[in-house]
Amino acid sequence: MHSETEFKIQNSELKIFMWPVRVYYQDTDAGGVVFHSTYLNFMERARVEWLRQLGFDNHDLSITHRVIFMVRSVTIDYLRPARLDDLLRVTVEVAEIGRSRVIFTQQVIRGHTLLVSARVSVVCVSLETFKPVSVPAVIRHKFESKP
Amino acid sequence: MHSETEFKIQNSELKIFMWPVRVYYQDTDAGGVVFHSTYLNFMERARVEWLRQLGFDNHDLSITHRVIFMVRSVTIDYLRPARLDDLLRVTVEVAEIGRSRVIFTQQVIRGHTLLVSARVSVVCVSLETFKPVSVPAVIRHKFESKP
Amino acid sequence: MHSETEFKIQNSELKIFMWPVRVYYQDTDAGGVVFHSTYLNFMERARVEWLRQLGFDNHDLSITHRVIFMVRSVTIDYLRPARLDDLLRVTVEVAEIGRSRVIFTQQVIRGHTLLVSARVSVVCVSLETFKPVSVPAVIRHKFESKP
Amino acid sequence: MHSETEFKIQNSELKIFMWPVRVYYQDTDAGGVVFHSTYLNFMERARVEWLRQLGFDNHDLSITHRVIFMVRSVTIDYLRPARLDDLLRVTVEVAEIGRSRVIFTQQVIRGHTLLVSARVSVVCVSLETFKPVSVPAVIRHKFESKP
Repeated sequence: MHSETEFKIQNSELKIFMWPVRVYYQDTDAGGVVFHSTYLNFMERARVEWLRQLGFDNHDLSITHRVIFMVRSVTIDYLRPARLDDLLRVTVEVAEIGRSRVIFTQQVIRGHTLLVSARVSVVCVSLETFKPVSVPAVIRHKFESKP
Repeated sequence: MHSETEFKIQNSELKIFMWPVRVYYQDTDAGGVVFHSTYLNFMERARVEWLRQLGFDNHDLSITHRVIFMVRSVTIDYLRPARLDDLLRVTVEVAEIGRSRVIFTQQVIRGHTLLVSARVSVVCVSLETFKPVSVPAVIRHKFESKP
Repeated sequence: MHSETEFKIQNSELKIFMWPVRVYYQDTDAGGVVFHSTYLNFMERARVEWLRQLGFDNHDLSITHRVIFMVRSVTIDYLRPARLDDLLRVTVEVAEIGRSRVIFTQQVIRGHTLLVSARVSVVCVSLETFKPVSVPAVIRHKFESKP
Repeated sequence: MHSETEFKIQNSELKIFMWPVRVYYQDTDAGGVVFHSTYLNFMERARVEWLRQLGFDNHDLSITHRVIFMVRSVTIDYLRPARLDDLLRVTVEVAEIGRSRVIFTQQVIRGHTLLVSARVSVVCVSLETFKPVSVPAVIRHKFESKP
């Protein structure tokens, strides 16, 4: 009956980009858990790998397009701690695209448990002036069409 | 005429706790600026030093009071980048105190320029259960009376 | 003719454990290269993954065997810098095993170019006393038999 | 009687540059101690501050002298662990100066206890070519005359 709906939900879930991250001693603190700023590093890795599977790396951005994506703001909620040896998955989804701004929603998940969720706003800036510029059309096109 | 007002403003500014932070290579990235997650580390240092000048260190919290303050959420805005060799000041102010939650507003400043501002929510949790517990009275008293 | 020699070389190369590491902004500094202490983090990841493929994780070590491997000394040579977006391979080889001490030789390689080489000495210590203890027999056996 | 000798020893000790470093959660790992690569960061901070009190910062080096000091090799021994809230002192001494190479001996000390000692070899390289160049005379002079 509602199999179509279910399929869509599953399909939608499958379409979300996920990057695996293992927790090492270097990521933890004396509280026995991952240090809170370290999750932002995990999220950067996931965004870069999401960009790479779309066909772009930092070199393309800086050499071909003369732009760099800079983090402008972050809102992050720590729900449950990750621990040493945990194998985490970090998701990347585009929530909004403006002229020069892209807002991502990202989650850190262990098994089926949501540990951390964040909203990361990045701005496309010129490598020369560091002023905001339009997201290059070829990149915007990929951002809009791909999950 | 309005000297009283000016004095109050100055006095209010003087009362804000500030911790100096120097920027080293270890804090920067290949973009030539401080990496975005590093500001959270600068802010942790400032909160710990603010707590220390109130008379508490992590050892007191964990041994005497059997609690630990964990970061629950952060909202952070990156306005201007800090660079290698910059001498920054990181402010700490208590914005709100609940039963177990304390919300700080923090700024990273270079000279008279605001670079980064954040709202950091921490929760007082039991060292044994990691469940939220009331902020110990002696600590709460200090938080409320001191700037 | 010399196929046997070639095979041995290949076989010897194949037997060396290698862990891939991608370079992100978080790993670099304002000099445009990977910050020098970061290579020790890359090497820790590789040693943990080498241990994992032998059948042990940090949890096994601490819960089952009540030991932890602590780094006692490092000698590291920086030959060439790694850069943003580089895909590196980090090798792990056991150079020596004593009663409680294990010495690893590790390399960081990009393509066929050696960037960094290190000798990392770790000591097996008791979780309770933090004093050196014998490497547990089951672990020692694996260290000696596996590449 | 031998007060002169004692004075010299004390005087020699006083002449060693020391930089204070406080240990925060961000510096520790789940083993409850400072993570081993973090000491290299502490040592970088001390070398930069030693250079600063000689009258040079990174900006001078790169803009005025067009050079950068890169770490070429490190030998580091971990004797005792530093812990959360520890106030450490990190020493800097020039052990050797060659044409383009400078070798430092550095120690991390808590109270009167030596925790970590290292030998850090840096090379003066051209900002343009990244090839070794002579340490600028004005800098070499300071290195040789000051403790």
